[in-house]
Amino acid sequence: MNVESKESFVYNKYGRFTADIINKKGSWINQMNLTEARQQLMAFQSKMSAFQHALSLLNYDGDTSAPVGAAENRAHTISVLSEETYKLSTGQETVQLLDYLDSQKEQLDEKERRMVWLLLKDIRFQQKIPMDEYVAYQKLVVESQSVWHQAKEKSDFAMFEPYLEKMFSTAIRFAHYANPEMDAYDYWLNEYEPGISRAVCDAFFAKLRERLVPLIREVGKREQVSNECIKGNFDVPSQEKLAHYLMNLIGLDPAHVGLSTTEHPFTTSLGSHLDERITTHYYEEDYTYSMFSVIHEGGHALYDTGSANDLAFTVLDGGVSMGIHESQSRFYENILGRSKEFIQFIFPELRRLFPQALSDCTWKDVYRAVNRVEPTLIRTEADEVTYTLHVMIRYELEKRIMAGELKVHDLPGEWNRLYQEYLGISVPDDRHGVLQDSHWSFGAIGYFPSYALGSAYGAQFLKKMQETVNVSEALKKGDFSAINAWNREHIWKYGSLKTPDQVLNDTLQEAFDPNVYLDYLEAKCREIYSI
Amino acid sequence: MNVESKESFVYNKYGRFTADIINKKGSWINQMNLTEARQQLMAFQSKMSAFQHALSLLNYDGDTSAPVGAAENRAHTISVLSEETYKLSTGQETVQLLDYLDSQKEQLDEKERRMVWLLLKDIRFQQKIPMDEYVAYQKLVVESQSVWHQAKEKSDFAMFEPYLEKMFSTAIRFAHYANPEMDAYDYWLNEYEPGISRAVCDAFFAKLRERLVPLIREVGKREQVSNECIKGNFDVPSQEKLAHYLMNLIGLDPAHVGLSTTEHPFTTSLGSHLDERITTHYYEEDYTYSMFSVIHEGGHALYDTGSANDLAFTVLDGGVSMGIHESQSRFYENILGRSKEFIQFIFPELRRLFPQALSDCTWKDVYRAVNRVEPTLIRTEADEVTYTLHVMIRYELEKRIMAGELKVHDLPGEWNRLYQEYLGISVPDDRHGVLQDSHWSFGAIGYFPSYALGSAYGAQFLKKMQETVNVSEALKKGDFSAINAWNREHIWKYGSLKTPDQVLNDTLQEAFDPNVYLDYLEAKCREIYSI
Repeated sequence: MNVESKESFVYNKYGRFTADIINKKGSWINQMNLTEARQQLMAFQSKMSAFQHALSLLNYDGDTSAPVGAAENRAHTISVLSEETYKLSTGQETVQLLDYLDSQKEQLDEKERRMVWLLLKDIRFQQKIPMDEYVAYQKLVVESQSVWHQAKEKSDFAMFEPYLEKMFSTAIRFAHYANPEMDAYDYWLNEYEPGISRAVCDAFFAKLRERLVPLIREVGKREQVSNECIKGNFDVPSQEKLAHYLMNLIGLDPAHVGLSTTEHPFTTSLGSHLDERITTHYYEEDYTYSMFSVIHEGGHALYDTGSANDLAFTVLDGGVSMGIHESQSRFYENILGRSKEFIQFIFPELRRLFPQALSDCTWKDVYRAVNRVEPTLIRTEADEVTYTLHVMIRYELEKRIMAGELKVHDLPGEWNRLYQEYLGISVPDDRHGVLQDSHWSFGAIGYFPSYALGSAYGAQFLKKMQETVNVSEALKKGDFSAINAWNREHIWKYGSLKTPDQVLNDTLQEAFDPNVYLDYLEAKCREIYSI
Repeated sequence: MNVESKESFVYNKYGRFTADIINKKGSWINQMNLTEARQQLMAFQSKMSAFQHALSLLNYDGDTSAPVGAAENRAHTISVLSEETYKLSTGQETVQLLDYLDSQKEQLDEKERRMVWLLLKDIRFQQKIPMDEYVAYQKLVVESQSVWHQAKEKSDFAMFEPYLEKMFSTAIRFAHYANPEMDAYDYWLNEYEPGISRAVCDAFFAKLRERLVPLIREVGKREQVSNECIKGNFDVPSQEKLAHYLMNLIGLDPAHVGLSTTEHPFTTSLGSHLDERITTHYYEEDYTYSMFSVIHEGGHALYDTGSANDLAFTVLDGGVSMGIHESQSRFYENILGRSKEFIQFIFPELRRLFPQALSDCTWKDVYRAVNRVEPTLIRTEADEVTYTLHVMIRYELEKRIMAGELKVHDLPGEWNRLYQEYLGISVPDDRHGVLQDSHWSFGAIGYFPSYALGSAYGAQFLKKMQETVNVSEALKKGDFSAINAWNREHIWKYGSLKTPDQVLNDTLQEAFDPNVYLDYLEAKCREIYSI
């Protein structure tokens, strides 16, 4: 089979150089024509996107619809397709093509240069990982996620521990393969958010801590706002209607964005930004969990689907980094979604869907309730202000495990200790503690800090947006068109063409300053709690 | 990339014969060791099952969850993966391997012999189809299904017509490629149900017509039974509960069988019988549509998931033919699901789920209602007796189009004329006529007759089963274990190891006789309508 596939690949594009490839590896490339190579670059990415579509769909299905006993079956398929993808993306012909294009880069356009750079970056990484370890890791990711689901259900950390140990040890090993001189945790921080390191994060979190801890303390002294109007019994069919209402309101295109349910909500692109899936989880006792999940994941989906159409089926399709991604998701969820104007606008719809539960409430009650500040156990349910502390705990724990200062076995104890120390609360069991997030189960170590960074970027984007868009008026009318147009123009349409730094600098035209975010949080808090 | 993948495939298994493969095609096979070849046979099928898992999942997703605008994106991915699958399954190394094993078949065990036969059969077919036509067809299937969905919604046959024309012309062309001497429609009939031809179907349908037409006429003269107790307003969440109750009752394993919703219910295996998905469609005005869809698709899923576990990841996994498959699905749906005993057993659950709608009903009312005989427009909603006439119409139309006696353009008119002629009813629009079934949209031409054949097989299986299993008592207790054990022992566990003929002959130990089915139908009808 592979002889055939090689032949069709080579004969079609480069005529009679097949024998050269086999007998004198590399010599054929000298005869390659730049025009053909540029076409080949696009064909390669198109094929890669098909394999990635299949792999993403297998994972998405595993998280949304698949029966539990199918995990092993799925792991087998993911392992086979990952091996094919690995061969495709790191194969000799691909590397020769990209090296050739890289050597001709002054003749490439901006998009092609960025494609070649990004593809070579991944190849350089993959080349450093032994193939058997790469394939084993893909399989581990599938099994680990399945075990995490079960372990969380049973609140049984011991069940998940060996998988988590392998996840961390693999992260350390892979980082060392990729960049032996760099600290392993710095490596992953920089992977998720290029330019970020422990030094940057340490300084960033110190600044947040410096202003947020006293603020939370102040709030604690005031009378707590009521959350009665968001608690009760909210039937799932009505919550489903709310989800679709919100997706439509914030401007998601139903022809290209689907909604499913899962344990821990996430967003995924399947093949290209033309097929985006968001997920949610309905809790009958609180409709706002799903409501803000939908807006948060909707922010991710707006960013991804906002890529210029000519980026589809290339590595430039979809958002550039976790930080910029979270700047969009948390912008829609918190800055817009928890604003006074937005809550006032959607209140009639909430009342229509939940007439009994909301009969005695005003929009101001809902506004205050969804902005209530209160230390709690679950990150994804945390309020906007304490949220950063949840992230800080995960950052600290990851950093220590990656440095060898903390054992995975001791993680639950340390987790619980830090929740007591920073948030003053006791963790009753691991289901509500260390097992709550899916991230580590699929190897996203070094990802968490981007949630906090993204929040801070978002506040600074708002400040800039307000120079030309009357955001408050737009929200009052429930009209997202000007807001989305601004984001599309400055951020979304570029997909991964610009680096995160370029997105930030070109959009803000000033240095990143977390104080903008802290000013915004403080102002909101002071008003709600009359501080 | 392909050089690499060839190398890993060849070096790992056959040591230093790589150069031989490339320079003197075919010579390496002489040095192949039978033990290695047998292992290679299993490895090949395992890899194929991974690609087929991905392709099936892409199609399943398209039918259940995918946003409508993602069809083109999905078509692109399916086209790429189909090309890879085609290369894998018809590549030179595969063919050499299978030819070699075929030449040594007296040394293979029964399973291996059947695997090699089935794999070579597909290869012989695929070898005869030009690769560009094969890939184009896979893409056509995806687009055609998407257009059919929209055309059905709009009741716009003209929109679907060019796709359906291509479907029929491709079916004729592919059949001629595959077997130039055989009639194209006979070819496809025989593909779906080996051993079947126009001659067999003509005789079979004549026999059904001979006994069913007078029976339906008799029924028409009697007082119609009421269907009030199945019509009304049945909320979807309760119907979902009923679906899961039924899945559990008939013995589907929730760890390996998932349920989703779609337009036209179907069942699919993903990768192996360890991951089976059934689908349904909820109509609020009639809970029995979904109820019998679930039991019907559940019958398919029982058959597939009943394959012996050692058949997983081989071509022997899952049911052998459409006819045997329908014999199981329609056995559970009609023979068991519409029996007096079954309805009596589930009635308390129905009443619990729909207390208001069923307050004035008895189980006998439900039993009569779900066995009501009445010519209607939609095949999947037809009663057990008129159902065969719906199939007969499709058979006749397919046969004439394939023979060039009828144009696709004239299909709606002929469809409507035959519904008037056989069933005495007027078709109001194409949505309720020629556009109702999905089958033609994905190229299943020659499939329909197997529905009628399967029904007839099922009745004869029942007769045989009753020799050792007290089916009536089992249904009264809602205990499917003995029934399922009998089916597993005689039919399911073999997967595709036996031919349909072997399954039929070994199980029945007598010739197939449609009169058994007709006796069963007549007895039921005579009792319900006091004929």
